[in-house]
Amino acid sequence: MTGSWTLSPDRCFSAEVSQRACARELYALVKDAPIISPHGHVDPALLADPAASFGTPTDLFIIPDHYVFRMLYSQGIALEGLGIPTRDGTPVEQDHRRIWQRFADHFYLFSGTPTGLWLADELTSVFGVTEKLSGANAQAVYDHIASRLAQRAFTPRALLARFKIDQLCTTDAATSRLDQHRAMSAEDLGSRIRPTFRPDAVVNLDTPGWLEHTNRLSEVSGIDVKDYRSFIQALEARRATFKELGATATDHAVVTPFTERLSEHDADKFYQRALRGSLQADDAHRFTGHMMLELARMSTEDGLVMQLHAGSCRNHNPVIFERFGPDMGADIPLQTEWTQNLRPLLEQSGNDPRFRLILFTLDETAYSRELAPIAGHYPSVFLGPPWWFLDSVNAMHRFLESAVETAGLYNLAGFNDDTRAFCSIPARHDMWRRVSCNWLAGKVVLGLIDQEDAGQMAMECAYGLAQRAYRLE
Amino acid sequence: MTGSWTLSPDRCFSAEVSQRACARELYALVKDAPIISPHGHVDPALLADPAASFGTPTDLFIIPDHYVFRMLYSQGIALEGLGIPTRDGTPVEQDHRRIWQRFADHFYLFSGTPTGLWLADELTSVFGVTEKLSGANAQAVYDHIASRLAQRAFTPRALLARFKIDQLCTTDAATSRLDQHRAMSAEDLGSRIRPTFRPDAVVNLDTPGWLEHTNRLSEVSGIDVKDYRSFIQALEARRATFKELGATATDHAVVTPFTERLSEHDADKFYQRALRGSLQADDAHRFTGHMMLELARMSTEDGLVMQLHAGSCRNHNPVIFERFGPDMGADIPLQTEWTQNLRPLLEQSGNDPRFRLILFTLDETAYSRELAPIAGHYPSVFLGPPWWFLDSVNAMHRFLESAVETAGLYNLAGFNDDTRAFCSIPARHDMWRRVSCNWLAGKVVLGLIDQEDAGQMAMECAYGLAQRAYRLE
Amino acid sequence: MTGSWTLSPDRCFSAEVSQRACARELYALVKDAPIISPHGHVDPALLADPAASFGTPTDLFIIPDHYVFRMLYSQGIALEGLGIPTRDGTPVEQDHRRIWQRFADHFYLFSGTPTGLWLADELTSVFGVTEKLSGANAQAVYDHIASRLAQRAFTPRALLARFKIDQLCTTDAATSRLDQHRAMSAEDLGSRIRPTFRPDAVVNLDTPGWLEHTNRLSEVSGIDVKDYRSFIQALEARRATFKELGATATDHAVVTPFTERLSEHDADKFYQRALRGSLQADDAHRFTGHMMLELARMSTEDGLVMQLHAGSCRNHNPVIFERFGPDMGADIPLQTEWTQNLRPLLEQSGNDPRFRLILFTLDETAYSRELAPIAGHYPSVFLGPPWWFLDSVNAMHRFLESAVETAGLYNLAGFNDDTRAFCSIPARHDMWRRVSCNWLAGKVVLGLIDQEDAGQMAMECAYGLAQRAYRLE
Repeated sequence: MTGSWTLSPDRCFSAEVSQRACARELYALVKDAPIISPHGHVDPALLADPAASFGTPTDLFIIPDHYVFRMLYSQGIALEGLGIPTRDGTPVEQDHRRIWQRFADHFYLFSGTPTGLWLADELTSVFGVTEKLSGANAQAVYDHIASRLAQRAFTPRALLARFKIDQLCTTDAATSRLDQHRAMSAEDLGSRIRPTFRPDAVVNLDTPGWLEHTNRLSEVSGIDVKDYRSFIQALEARRATFKELGATATDHAVVTPFTERLSEHDADKFYQRALRGSLQADDAHRFTGHMMLELARMSTEDGLVMQLHAGSCRNHNPVIFERFGPDMGADIPLQTEWTQNLRPLLEQSGNDPRFRLILFTLDETAYSRELAPIAGHYPSVFLGPPWWFLDSVNAMHRFLESAVETAGLYNLAGFNDDTRAFCSIPARHDMWRRVSCNWLAGKVVLGLIDQEDAGQMAMECAYGLAQRAYRLE
Repeated sequence: MTGSWTLSPDRCFSAEVSQRACARELYALVKDAPIISPHGHVDPALLADPAASFGTPTDLFIIPDHYVFRMLYSQGIALEGLGIPTRDGTPVEQDHRRIWQRFADHFYLFSGTPTGLWLADELTSVFGVTEKLSGANAQAVYDHIASRLAQRAFTPRALLARFKIDQLCTTDAATSRLDQHRAMSAEDLGSRIRPTFRPDAVVNLDTPGWLEHTNRLSEVSGIDVKDYRSFIQALEARRATFKELGATATDHAVVTPFTERLSEHDADKFYQRALRGSLQADDAHRFTGHMMLELARMSTEDGLVMQLHAGSCRNHNPVIFERFGPDMGADIPLQTEWTQNLRPLLEQSGNDPRFRLILFTLDETAYSRELAPIAGHYPSVFLGPPWWFLDSVNAMHRFLESAVETAGLYNLAGFNDDTRAFCSIPARHDMWRRVSCNWLAGKVVLGLIDQEDAGQMAMECAYGLAQRAYRLE
Repeated sequence: MTGSWTLSPDRCFSAEVSQRACARELYALVKDAPIISPHGHVDPALLADPAASFGTPTDLFIIPDHYVFRMLYSQGIALEGLGIPTRDGTPVEQDHRRIWQRFADHFYLFSGTPTGLWLADELTSVFGVTEKLSGANAQAVYDHIASRLAQRAFTPRALLARFKIDQLCTTDAATSRLDQHRAMSAEDLGSRIRPTFRPDAVVNLDTPGWLEHTNRLSEVSGIDVKDYRSFIQALEARRATFKELGATATDHAVVTPFTERLSEHDADKFYQRALRGSLQADDAHRFTGHMMLELARMSTEDGLVMQLHAGSCRNHNPVIFERFGPDMGADIPLQTEWTQNLRPLLEQSGNDPRFRLILFTLDETAYSRELAPIAGHYPSVFLGPPWWFLDSVNAMHRFLESAVETAGLYNLAGFNDDTRAFCSIPARHDMWRRVSCNWLAGKVVLGLIDQEDAGQMAMECAYGLAQRAYRLE
């Protein structure tokens, strides 16, 4: 390769000269700050095993990344042709070079998308690719990346150091044995790589395979989960274990943030029905609403920060779900109501200084209307950064514009990358740092924030807010 | 007239010098490209009859354009005084010069609106008016336009050529005999002026006059529509005829994009009730939801691109509706839910490579939340351009900002003007070209898109996306 | 104090040179224009009593201003420690200097918020503070303000003149005796300080203390309110009194803008139930919906402009409500539907030239989707300015961007400050004037509005729109 594919050092900065100058200054303060990654989906096995590797370029960039292959699918490229494993036995493309070629042929589809920017940043900054990826150079770029991946400097652990990742929180099922986290705990990595407690599969009674997950919960907790009360005990036991292994937070995915207190009798009634496989229409929905209150109570008591991700209609495309399973880029957001739904939870725990709740939405209309006013009043509530489809240059900017005037900056939870693509972590944090510095610079040149405050706020965005919100200090 | 009313050659371009320079370059690539107008409401009679004319300036600019007279009405000017025909026999102003004077007296009301820009562009670029319209020069401007309209160079056909309209799709009732399209087919105009199949009046069982429309469907199709099955046959027959006359698309207006599969038995039951005039509460709503699935099936089979315009509460003002009828500027948008509503339709047809669905919304919150994620996953789905109230400089910009990061540019359906005002077509396309070029230039100067991609994307916005989405290649 | 805390004379103006130059020119036209404040919550006692004073700096800036203390509360500072009076007898901090110190220690929390800007503007422009407030200078600043407040030039009446407030409308319960307004009427102040008729407490049957409010209505109106009919008479009588004392408007707060015509029989039935204390589930909601129609009828007849503030879930935090009461910064917005809800009201009164309705929303998604199309059609409807959480630099800009393209500028109701913080009035109007001038300048440099129109529109934003919409000419 003899090209010169470089990203602008001023990317994400306004072209207006005074704003750009100010953005550069602010960015200089934060660009080399270590990364706090308090929420994401990196596989802990990558880091627990010193010998772990990323596989082929296709293994690294395409097959596990639904951000990438859903865009290709939307333009008519079959997932089978991209090597995405099927669960119904349909054969898929095995030739990773062919898959890579298809990806490169359609690389223009990512123009103007955050995925396009992350990919460009990874390819150039992490792997030293010097020509813009295209159908013509696809195989040469493949060779180049493959040769890098074979080097010791490109193992996950080596990149963890190179990326200056200070804290990395993974997301782990409530039923996980946490073996890798236990192993890392034995090394000095335990204070940097932490688990996060995610009990969705045992909390949402209509999860496919719920009974198996529940049986596994009994096994791993040593508590025989046979009714609502023992279920609660098992969750509490597991939380304690997660905490011992460094967890500072829990995570919960819900379709709506509905919360409602059930009597213990009713909670047990729904739970028994689930155990008997005879759930009725609204049971799972109401039980989840009740569990949000219980999980908030537990968080108040044990101090684990509660994260709530609401509003994704999972597996919207049943054709894809049946063949390929979940997480295939077919989760579509829903309108989300927060004000009424969260009221019971906030009445119970919202004023308690021990409790901390971080909210994530895919419905950005809620920022100015509901979430910023809630975070700007309740001492327990923090706004999570733009999530998923909103984790992009424009949507980050809109988030800051919509949320900060009402919530103030200090009720935000900073940034998290939420990614399973380990190598994209620096690119994602860098984009946030650039966008937040440029946004602050915009306020400075508008005369709305002074330089002193802006510098402080840039550090907070890059580092401080996440560190404090997630109790990672 | 001795004034100098000119529009800025840089209108819609950022004042920031580097962005403006880039926007100019991109615009230079597309400004003279022919116009693809794949969806609109121009009366085919204007073009089928070589002798057709536009009438007076008031006939051209005011009486048929609800964008214009609804704004005047909102400021207290009676529609009767604007010559809008009544259906209850109330007399209206007949003096077109007086109407024009009223319009000119209130021309300032359009300042900052897209209608204001289109009017200014038409008056200056098409008609050569050189003084900003005002109460003082109203009659002189009227004379000027009237003299132009009397010239052969200002007939609809002459302007079709001058405007470089390569493709113009009209919107035609399922029951239309398409006589004008048939006549144009006999000339070489048939490959440029195409009909679009719009069956709302026979599909929505609660349409005023539904039975008459249905009887007309029997007549024109030659199929005796007497039950659900024959209704489907008649629709299929008509689609075939539309296709023969060049149609590549259908169009459907619905209050909500609700879709639901009924059994054939239930579909027929509702249909029979409509025939007997004994519709029950939810029948029409559910029947329409079912028909969306049937129409998607037909589109999959015959390849006509399906357009869905959802979320307008038609004829919101009953006082106006009773006196003046529909399309009086009193249609008000509604919140629109897409994710759940479209699911049955997308499950049925969304993965089929033969199917193509273009979605239009008046609820722009759906862009980032629902529509871009849907278009960014399903191979069949494309996002229509900003529709109606959103067809404006700001709203176009917001659309691009909200949709492209998630959907990518190539899942958009380009631009369409949706207008019945023939002379506004170039002004509308020009506004879109300017806004999209300026938006792309903004990405270039932010370092997010490179120059090469931006040039390609500008051509796509102006031309390619619409051409491909509507199968007009 | 020896610092130099000054706000930028160009604050809120784009850094882009041509836009800034244009914004400056437009702002020069309006910056010294007198203030029309057609809606707000200033206590009339402040102005009726020539000897009234503001108390301590803490009395002025912190204790009555929920914008200020809710932000402090959101970061864990107890309201008791800020001297907020309790209604359950819990003791609160009495030392105003200590409260001021807490506020100053956390002044950075307001960075980037409108409250932060208003405070900075008040402290510097009104009180001549020259050092940015901080924990270090808190007591010195306190002394400085206290010394100013002791001067005659800092009484409310002196500031009324200094602020050039031409018209100030307060908000007064339907049951208010209006003694202060009566007193001001006797002086020449009556034509500048006007009451506004707000009957929520007697209209919404589920208001806490409704019966007492109703009894007071009987007393003050001299009409024995014992059924629906006498209730209507009492309201009409009170409206007449308000009008005599200069009122030009009414104000109504509703959770949703639901409107529905009840039969007089049903209206009386619900009313009787309220009198007996036996309201049923939906009675209050439906009665309020009906009363909106009745109040619109009255407005049509007596010419009082009807204001509707919809979509706030009041007293969201019951813990705070029980201890501190209402208006504690714990009112959280709700999604709001306007198109269907307002239809009955607009059918009844929307086309009547005597009727005028000004709409306020906390759900800004409604601007482009519902409110601008409604205001852009119905002659009676005007859009109120960005309300409450939306009364900020960004949200004002978004409002103008979203509303004007469809509604046009002339269907807006200009600005109002909606404040109980008298000293913040000039800061709030100045922010609006700056933002609207900068927004107009943005249109000028984009070539979308010409200079002549922009100047006219700047005056309208600052002054004319509010004056006409509220019939204060």
